[in-house]
Amino acid sequence: MRNINEDTITQAVIASFADCKDGRLRTVMTSLVQHLHAFARDVHLTEDEWFKAVKFLTEVGHITDDKRQEFILLSDTLGLSMLVMSQNNRKPSNCTEATVFGPFYVEGAPIYDNGDDISNGAKGAPCYVSGQVRGADGEVIAGAQIDVWQSDEDGFYDVQNLDEAGNAIHRARGRLKADAEGFFNFRSILAEAYPIPHDGPVGRMLAAVGRHPWRPAHLHFMIEAPGYETLITHVFRDGDKYLDSDVVFGVRSTLIAEWKRHEAGVAPDGREIGVPWYSLEYDFVLNPSEVPA
Amino acid sequence: MRNINEDTITQAVIASFADCKDGRLRTVMTSLVQHLHAFARDVHLTEDEWFKAVKFLTEVGHITDDKRQEFILLSDTLGLSMLVMSQNNRKPSNCTEATVFGPFYVEGAPIYDNGDDISNGAKGAPCYVSGQVRGADGEVIAGAQIDVWQSDEDGFYDVQNLDEAGNAIHRARGRLKADAEGFFNFRSILAEAYPIPHDGPVGRMLAAVGRHPWRPAHLHFMIEAPGYETLITHVFRDGDKYLDSDVVFGVRSTLIAEWKRHEAGVAPDGREIGVPWYSLEYDFVLNPSEVPA
Ligand SMILES: [Fe+2]
Ligand SMILES: [Fe+2]
Repeated sequence: MRNINEDTITQAVIASFADCKDGRLRTVMTSLVQHLHAFARDVHLTEDEWFKAVKFLTEVGHITDDKRQEFILLSDTLGLSMLVMSQNNRKPSNCTEATVFGPFYVEGAPIYDNGDDISNGAKGAPCYVSGQVRGADGEVIAGAQIDVWQSDEDGFYDVQNLDEAGNAIHRARGRLKADAEGFFNFRSILAEAYPIPHDGPVGRMLAAVGRHPWRPAHLHFMIEAPGYETLITHVFRDGDKYLDSDVVFGVRSTLIAEWKRHEAGVAPDGREIGVPWYSLEYDFVLNPSEVPA
Repeated sequence: MRNINEDTITQAVIASFADCKDGRLRTVMTSLVQHLHAFARDVHLTEDEWFKAVKFLTEVGHITDDKRQEFILLSDTLGLSMLVMSQNNRKPSNCTEATVFGPFYVEGAPIYDNGDDISNGAKGAPCYVSGQVRGADGEVIAGAQIDVWQSDEDGFYDVQNLDEAGNAIHRARGRLKADAEGFFNFRSILAEAYPIPHDGPVGRMLAAVGRHPWRPAHLHFMIEAPGYETLITHVFRDGDKYLDSDVVFGVRSTLIAEWKRHEAGVAPDGREIGVPWYSLEYDFVLNPSEVPA
């Protein structure tokens, strides 16, 4: 510690954690410092580049508030979120795969019954969604709790449009329960591609590295049932032009499904619809918890 | 890109930089993603830990303003600043070594003549500093520009104490020129150990890993002369109890010097001093620029 130079610095920092009483924290900090220093050495990071990084992170911090989390966008766009999610949600191959949570989930969304229209006025082509929730051995799961959320046809989630009091009217978002045989169905709107918020430092980073800010159209699901691991995932819309370049790297081929287009006419709920409408059918398979709930 | 999982994600992110027109940026981002992902894999970072990291970085961003730069503190305390400084300021062994810049430098400090008292009322025992600036071959460097700054005996830099208008009165900080033979001398105050600001997230990180926030006593110098690399360094006070555990890893053994204690009496400038006083003599050797200025 009395003769720090570019060769001795990493070991000196690691040694400084010797009195850390939290063994896991010490492990994480030691690895963080090793990789952070290895990065700076590998690219021979310059003092000017270091200072640009400090300014960039400062901007990321300053644009972040209780409505916008630019650090999560940064993690998402660098693939860190998908990596951390994947390595903590390994599932047998017959179970539905998980993907990134995203920033637009809201606790306490409106409660609906099967068959209800959850769009609540959100703009978009009508879409009927149905499926079944089962377990890894094919067993029926009765009454699973389903949270669903999506953007409107302009690419905005309800929480991105606040009224004057700062509150969001919940649209295209809701909670419902699968029935005793695991079936669920609801009406919403067609999922459309949208860009992540890109008017801040993360958007400038994407532009600088030659990337677009778009996500392929998708519908978010969180499905919970006692005795099973909670599943957080999306269903992606087949044919979307951004399936091969999702800005947050969330696409898994098993999660791609067809939104079927139907001409104006009678919908599954018996309603006469005067415009073309869509339907999506997708079944979910949950992984049993290791420790039964 | 259609089947992202924990094994394919890193390559997918690297491939997303394919259209980056700035080759250096592409190199840096590719290495950053490789090391960031390797870190997350090596420690099997959990979702909860990831979220704690997001919250920590958010706090670092929110406490940072134009008076406080918590990201630089974070970089300093993880040894990144010292590593980046070292690998960009390699010098021949006969030259004075550089160390971290620190956050307390101010452009346009008051201008003094050799022999002046730069303390301007800063609290601390009187200290007389003198030395010579030479080149790597022993040649005299006439008129080098010397910036010097230090904390007071309570451990605060002048810029940490603002008046009601938000301005700092410059104390224990100044600019002077070495004379035609390279000699300089000034009066200031005794350098004392001080803690870095530790009432924020970086301070909490240090406490969590069992580290103190102290720096050993030191005097900052920046020395500029045409035809030579600018030298940014400190002189550290021998005997300080934090020399082996500087929180920002800035100590180099060649930069440790003795502050000699003298009983009350006649000082080098002929003044009668009624309290014990100190003296420091330290010579600096500058490295010629590769491209002469
Ligand atoms: Fe989304
Ligand atoms: Fe300092």
